[in-house]
Amino acid sequence: MEQLKGALLFGQSGGPTAVINASALGVFEEAAKYDCITKIYGASHGIKGILFDELFDIDQEDPAELALLKNTPSSVLGSVRYKLKPPEEDDSDYRRILEVFTKYDIRYFLYNGGNDSMDTCYKIGKYLTDHNYPCKIIGVPKTIDNDLFGTDHCPGYGSAAKYIATSCMELARDSRVYDKGSITVIEVMGRNAGWLTAASAVASYKGWGPDLIYVPELPFDLDDFLAEVKEVFVEKGDCMVVVSEGIRDREDKYISEYQKNAVCDSFNHIQLGGVGSFLAALVKQSTNAKVRSIEFSLLQRCAAHIASKTDVDEAYLAGAEAVKAAVNGKSNIMIAFGRAETKEYKLVIKELPLEMVANTEKKLPEDYLCSDRHFITEKFMDYVLPLIDGEAYPPFVDGVPHFATLKRVKTR
Amino acid sequence: MEQLKGALLFGQSGGPTAVINASALGVFEEAAKYDCITKIYGASHGIKGILFDELFDIDQEDPAELALLKNTPSSVLGSVRYKLKPPEEDDSDYRRILEVFTKYDIRYFLYNGGNDSMDTCYKIGKYLTDHNYPCKIIGVPKTIDNDLFGTDHCPGYGSAAKYIATSCMELARDSRVYDKGSITVIEVMGRNAGWLTAASAVASYKGWGPDLIYVPELPFDLDDFLAEVKEVFVEKGDCMVVVSEGIRDREDKYISEYQKNAVCDSFNHIQLGGVGSFLAALVKQSTNAKVRSIEFSLLQRCAAHIASKTDVDEAYLAGAEAVKAAVNGKSNIMIAFGRAETKEYKLVIKELPLEMVANTEKKLPEDYLCSDRHFITEKFMDYVLPLIDGEAYPPFVDGVPHFATLKRVKTR
Repeated sequence: MEQLKGALLFGQSGGPTAVINASALGVFEEAAKYDCITKIYGASHGIKGILFDELFDIDQEDPAELALLKNTPSSVLGSVRYKLKPPEEDDSDYRRILEVFTKYDIRYFLYNGGNDSMDTCYKIGKYLTDHNYPCKIIGVPKTIDNDLFGTDHCPGYGSAAKYIATSCMELARDSRVYDKGSITVIEVMGRNAGWLTAASAVASYKGWGPDLIYVPELPFDLDDFLAEVKEVFVEKGDCMVVVSEGIRDREDKYISEYQKNAVCDSFNHIQLGGVGSFLAALVKQSTNAKVRSIEFSLLQRCAAHIASKTDVDEAYLAGAEAVKAAVNGKSNIMIAFGRAETKEYKLVIKELPLEMVANTEKKLPEDYLCSDRHFITEKFMDYVLPLIDGEAYPPFVDGVPHFATLKRVKTR
Repeated sequence: MEQLKGALLFGQSGGPTAVINASALGVFEEAAKYDCITKIYGASHGIKGILFDELFDIDQEDPAELALLKNTPSSVLGSVRYKLKPPEEDDSDYRRILEVFTKYDIRYFLYNGGNDSMDTCYKIGKYLTDHNYPCKIIGVPKTIDNDLFGTDHCPGYGSAAKYIATSCMELARDSRVYDKGSITVIEVMGRNAGWLTAASAVASYKGWGPDLIYVPELPFDLDDFLAEVKEVFVEKGDCMVVVSEGIRDREDKYISEYQKNAVCDSFNHIQLGGVGSFLAALVKQSTNAKVRSIEFSLLQRCAAHIASKTDVDEAYLAGAEAVKAAVNGKSNIMIAFGRAETKEYKLVIKELPLEMVANTEKKLPEDYLCSDRHFITEKFMDYVLPLIDGEAYPPFVDGVPHFATLKRVKTR
């Protein structure tokens, strides 16, 4: 088979993760092995870097510094949230992309992101094909939310889940230390799917974790919630609750929107905290117990210091496999993960057509949700434990992590 | 020298830390070496466990499980916040303590805590001496706040500082990832002293950290704050700020109290978040930039998964040295830390009279505070780097830490 000869361009998109740069390293190191790949570029801030002709020359980076990417959190090339219009509406972005691709002779385009990014890949791929510009386009999956369609799990999820499970375990120790009990409400990311929130159950099954877990997959009722928290608190003397940021009521209204009615009369329009602090305030009102709200916020997606080794290794592999697929002539696909039907966990690499992935969300299946109370079934443990397994500590210098700092040499 | 023969009682008090149980292990393992110590007890919830005659028989614990205490966060015996009255006002608690000490033949009492706990030790010691009850009383220092008088630093601080520095470094990566800049306001613990907040500067000196740092040692002016944040944001395109929970204005009023005026008109008396989220809301109002507030909350004091090895080892040592001192006839002292005048960091164990420690607070010295802007001088790095040095990861099982679970067998 004759391989396409030309440059490879890699971009990072959407919310960063603890392991997104491990995928970048997988791409860079694998791409360096092939003669048909004449140059390696990184797009500054994803698709925006293409539109503004701001590419980094990765060949000028020190390989030892690049190697640090494996344990460096956040998107080292810069990220972006930018949605391409359908080309039939406005094709100016696509014309610009074709122009820049032609300028740098880009024949391999690998894009790392979630649903929206796969949609971007799909549209670019279609446009280039329609305009007879040969280019292999491969999506590399990424999202802490784990809601990408068609893949068993997603790079980024395992590390965020490990952070959440570990922190919940530590918080459960801390919050139960006094002779007088208290109630703790923890807010976890996840707008539409409860995968991250469910990870807190690992702490519970290991002996120290939340008593109640609320995910967006089930409608949230404020009165039921307050009654359940009270019941646990009365019975146990304390209570730990974990809620998804995206919990909604039966009318599909976000609970976080409820507090918008609570306008403040001085320092106008103070933005209250998230749904966790809102619920904590209501619990406080209703129980008069000591109540604390904790939000993991960005910490859960950038805590490379407690990354899952499985996740880091698989993120790297996703990048490397994307290059392999492209060199082997594949295009318009996303690298996806499956599991071998073995007793021990074993990863299987899959390839999915981009149009299948784009804009579809994967939610928690029903058999991970308890039917008798707001909690996660033990069956979920079989799913999640292999994904959070192993520790991939970054190197430490002077007591803090030593992360990669790239030169980021611009091509122009 | 004839050693006092009898039981040893150990208690934990005040806010827990990531390494307080390492001190407990130091006490238990050292105490087991001496024939003059006939029994080892742990007080359930500190002084309350004595008053209610709720002691745990530590001799019944499995030594292998006890060994896990070295990396187990939070107070395994349970903690308490209880202030003894002066005995001249009301001596009922003291009479009860003497009764329980007599019942169990307690001749060694070691108490682990901060300022208040040292005050408790001091008062008990004085009462027992006045009532001719021979008992050696030693304070074991503990506080993440690092504000204990007379000691170079305090067990618990190094690990919390390491968590803060590491998390700020990771957040600085994450918060600067998009093409459009943002402002991040991080709230760190520390009611009266800025030691913990200052630790965030480590991230900055290592290349990725906050731009501005506000500590309680300097008066806080809201208008100056908003102007400074704006200036950095305009100049750099983004801005990261770290504030102590305890910042106060020139009239010594906590900034966190300002928002109490901001009463909400529905869901009455919603307790807003901390000072960080309050300041973030004001910054948002004043800049219209993307603003996020992050509160480390309890996470910073219980994150055993990122504990400092120096801190864990020193916490253990503080416990062990307390037992040695007691067996050697010392009493009414607290174990304290100094530094040898060597180039390499070297710990020196000191002993301080309890009455010197009790109720005095140690603040950040002036030469750690920048004079030209709200930031921490590089001189502070010499102080703090040895304290956060080394990693002391807990053992992991199934992807999450494996912490100690004691039997906690009650004596009655």
